[in-house]
Amino acid sequence: MSHETSGISIRLMDATDLGRGFLDALRALKPIELTEQQAIDVYRDRLKSRIRTYVAVIDDRIAGTASVFIEPKFINSGGVVGHIEDVAVHPGFQKHGIGRLLVEHLLNVCREFHCYKVILDCAEGVIPFYEKIGFHRWERAMRIDL
Amino acid sequence: MSHETSGISIRLMDATDLGRGFLDALRALKPIELTEQQAIDVYRDRLKSRIRTYVAVIDDRIAGTASVFIEPKFINSGGVVGHIEDVAVHPGFQKHGIGRLLVEHLLNVCREFHCYKVILDCAEGVIPFYEKIGFHRWERAMRIDL
Repeated sequence: MSHETSGISIRLMDATDLGRGFLDALRALKPIELTEQQAIDVYRDRLKSRIRTYVAVIDDRIAGTASVFIEPKFINSGGVVGHIEDVAVHPGFQKHGIGRLLVEHLLNVCREFHCYKVILDCAEGVIPFYEKIGFHRWERAMRIDL
Repeated sequence: MSHETSGISIRLMDATDLGRGFLDALRALKPIELTEQQAIDVYRDRLKSRIRTYVAVIDDRIAGTASVFIEPKFINSGGVVGHIEDVAVHPGFQKHGIGRLLVEHLLNVCREFHCYKVILDCAEGVIPFYEKIGFHRWERAMRIDL
């Protein structure tokens, strides 16, 4: 599943996107120091873990990315939950609605998997961004560092 | 990896645990209406998605369960994150520290996978339970219903 809006196409990532600036887009979020081979290994490991990484492509460059993990659950009688992770837009492509397009694309993917809910953790500063898309404040995210 | 404390053993779930009251323990959390075959299908789908479901066993009965998903990431240079889900203790076995044993077991599993952090979403009421184990309040969990 992919869609195209005004020159932006959104589709599943493949390994060749590492040569189209994929990591540069993701660096908008956090530092990344990976060799090309290490990045390919992470990509493969994520595929095996069924993490779906999507990319927004403009003129054959990666403008943004967002990922989703589909979690089949016993509770709610086999309900399926979508977990959104790592939404990032390259600094050179921000303020063009690409983040919103990516998240809305993931929501459509989750609908195809019959998810009953989609959840994510975010910093206070981006709550309004997600509220505009239709998310509401839910539980408290807790963290422990190992 | 499994460990045993005062008659409680904690280990990875297998399909035969469905006959040891696994779903009854999980019902402490949410309603579940699944036939045995449907539950086996969910179990297999979770295995394929690399979700690790652990059980606390007392006298060959499932007293509690907790799950963890290990997420390999590009960010933080290939850092790995543990996601804890669906911590539940059977009403007949509560107030014996089984929940804490389960969560601490998952933290050890996450250490083996070299996770740099472990996160979970929880209701306000159980924040003190997780704080006692060493978790701290982090981001805001957001949700959308599909």
